[in-house]
Amino acid sequence: MPTNLQILLDNRPTTEATLGNFKLVTCETPALQDDQVLVRHHFLSLDPYMRGRMNDTKSYTAPQALGQVMGGGTVGEVVESRSPLFVPGDKVVGMGGWQTFSVVDATAPGALRTVDTTHVPLSYYLGAVGMPGVTAWYGLRNIIEALPGQTVVVSAATGAVGSAFAALAKTRSCRVVGIAGGPAKCQYATRELGFDACIDYKLHADAASLSGALKEACPDGVDGYFENVGGMVLDAVMLRMNDFGRIALCGMIAGYDGNPMPMNYPALILRSRLRIQGFIVTEHLDVWPKALQELGELVASGKLRPRESVAQGLAAAPEAFLGLLKGKNFGKQLVKLI
Amino acid sequence: MPTNLQILLDNRPTTEATLGNFKLVTCETPALQDDQVLVRHHFLSLDPYMRGRMNDTKSYTAPQALGQVMGGGTVGEVVESRSPLFVPGDKVVGMGGWQTFSVVDATAPGALRTVDTTHVPLSYYLGAVGMPGVTAWYGLRNIIEALPGQTVVVSAATGAVGSAFAALAKTRSCRVVGIAGGPAKCQYATRELGFDACIDYKLHADAASLSGALKEACPDGVDGYFENVGGMVLDAVMLRMNDFGRIALCGMIAGYDGNPMPMNYPALILRSRLRIQGFIVTEHLDVWPKALQELGELVASGKLRPRESVAQGLAAAPEAFLGLLKGKNFGKQLVKLI
Repeated sequence: MPTNLQILLDNRPTTEATLGNFKLVTCETPALQDDQVLVRHHFLSLDPYMRGRMNDTKSYTAPQALGQVMGGGTVGEVVESRSPLFVPGDKVVGMGGWQTFSVVDATAPGALRTVDTTHVPLSYYLGAVGMPGVTAWYGLRNIIEALPGQTVVVSAATGAVGSAFAALAKTRSCRVVGIAGGPAKCQYATRELGFDACIDYKLHADAASLSGALKEACPDGVDGYFENVGGMVLDAVMLRMNDFGRIALCGMIAGYDGNPMPMNYPALILRSRLRIQGFIVTEHLDVWPKALQELGELVASGKLRPRESVAQGLAAAPEAFLGLLKGKNFGKQLVKLI
Repeated sequence: MPTNLQILLDNRPTTEATLGNFKLVTCETPALQDDQVLVRHHFLSLDPYMRGRMNDTKSYTAPQALGQVMGGGTVGEVVESRSPLFVPGDKVVGMGGWQTFSVVDATAPGALRTVDTTHVPLSYYLGAVGMPGVTAWYGLRNIIEALPGQTVVVSAATGAVGSAFAALAKTRSCRVVGIAGGPAKCQYATRELGFDACIDYKLHADAASLSGALKEACPDGVDGYFENVGGMVLDAVMLRMNDFGRIALCGMIAGYDGNPMPMNYPALILRSRLRIQGFIVTEHLDVWPKALQELGELVASGKLRPRESVAQGLAAAPEAFLGLLKGKNFGKQLVKLI
């Protein structure tokens, strides 16, 4: 059996996550039992939610166990199978974790899914045509309920969720405005991702200033907001929300690493009669087939051309992950493992 | 024509509202034109929303104009009519404002409504069977969507909205827990209003302590919360919300008088997948007939026996209003004008 590289959670961060929280180890992959499949991972997905799991606190998923392989989404290829459901060569997406191989029980529902790479590159199943894409789809359609002509805003605009959000919003004839960090990301958002405008939050020292920029970019106000960030950005957008606006809340990356970030103007929820709703896309599996079909068509037709930040080799995963938490990535953050 | 006493907004508060913001004046009621009605007010309603209108800021209603009669709900009796729709002696509810008489255009939709005082005292049409009652009804039914067996919480529990909320929640077989200020209000909530438990927020110095008391009172967590207060109370309840909990946000009295009060744990919206929604009951006129019917039946059957704080005479209105903002009232705050 091949040698497997793994990254374990060695200890929990007290404030900011650091490289010292992780540990790289080597082990042998075990021999397969009946109904098991050995998958060689091509790509590992790095996602903000992983930071929350590093803490030992109540959340919507159990904390990452200490001394165990870090969890995470993977795409790869079946290299050995003792299951009738998979044959070597199958391209598959699953939750293989931060390691180069995984042994998967093929009978566990949803553990492994075969994907077609004819029109969609394998890595996209971790981004635009995977969990981040479906997240954008669910928030836009089921919470924001965007209508043609309305203005919708998304933070972390050039990330995996933001890119998909823009393409989905444009096909619904919305005005879509992004918020991102730095001129390169903002240019990329408007030139490549279809955003009508993109605001560089790093140019603004406080919510009032950022809110002023939003007023220019959204002359008719904001009808829907997809929140990935929290903190000052949330305050600024709330100040510009139209009456009866909707906010889909799916990430608060600004607060993951330290103290909770307050929402400074909750009275706006009343004044503007807003609806704010948190969600986790893995709790809405019923929508995935429909969402993945639309996202796959957008990719195949060239309307969604997401960018990827690719770190090379498993050992590079911790540093790439810490960079993601600080917004250093540009597009979907992946680790290439082959 | 009779002499009319009026209270005008003389100047706007800079921080706390004070008696000096108001001015009492006397004038003659004008002679009626065709389709006009002269109403003698029996009771004026004092409500927290009036504080918001005293500021000259964007809100869901236009600011109260300076030098004009303070707006407000009234019940009274038609004393003269040049409209075929009303005759002297009719008991009516309307928005007559802080004055002893009003001249009303009877053709304006919704300006004046005749009410039946056979089973419901006239003053209740400003409280339990009026706007506050419908507010509780809408929040419980259309936002919290309470189901039998669920636990619902309301702040300002002994006020007009809270009293109605408790009666409505009990008829839906919910566990209903109140939050109020002081032992007298809490005793009244459990002994008279049907609350299963009531927590005195004044015994708690911070959200963590109040949240601990809520944990005892709500052993199965909180499924729905009706928010009238904001600030520390909102933080404390959010810490106890169950997954997929709903928060109806209809008042933030804690922040009306000064600086905005932050929501300190917005990440809980994501972690617990909460839905928070602000609303103004006057924007949902379609539900009023159904809500008023249920509320009237609860009063007639003795299941809703709201308490009233009654100030005597129009000149007492400003002081009663300032007391309301500080929670000095006990039950629905009214001013008796006859």
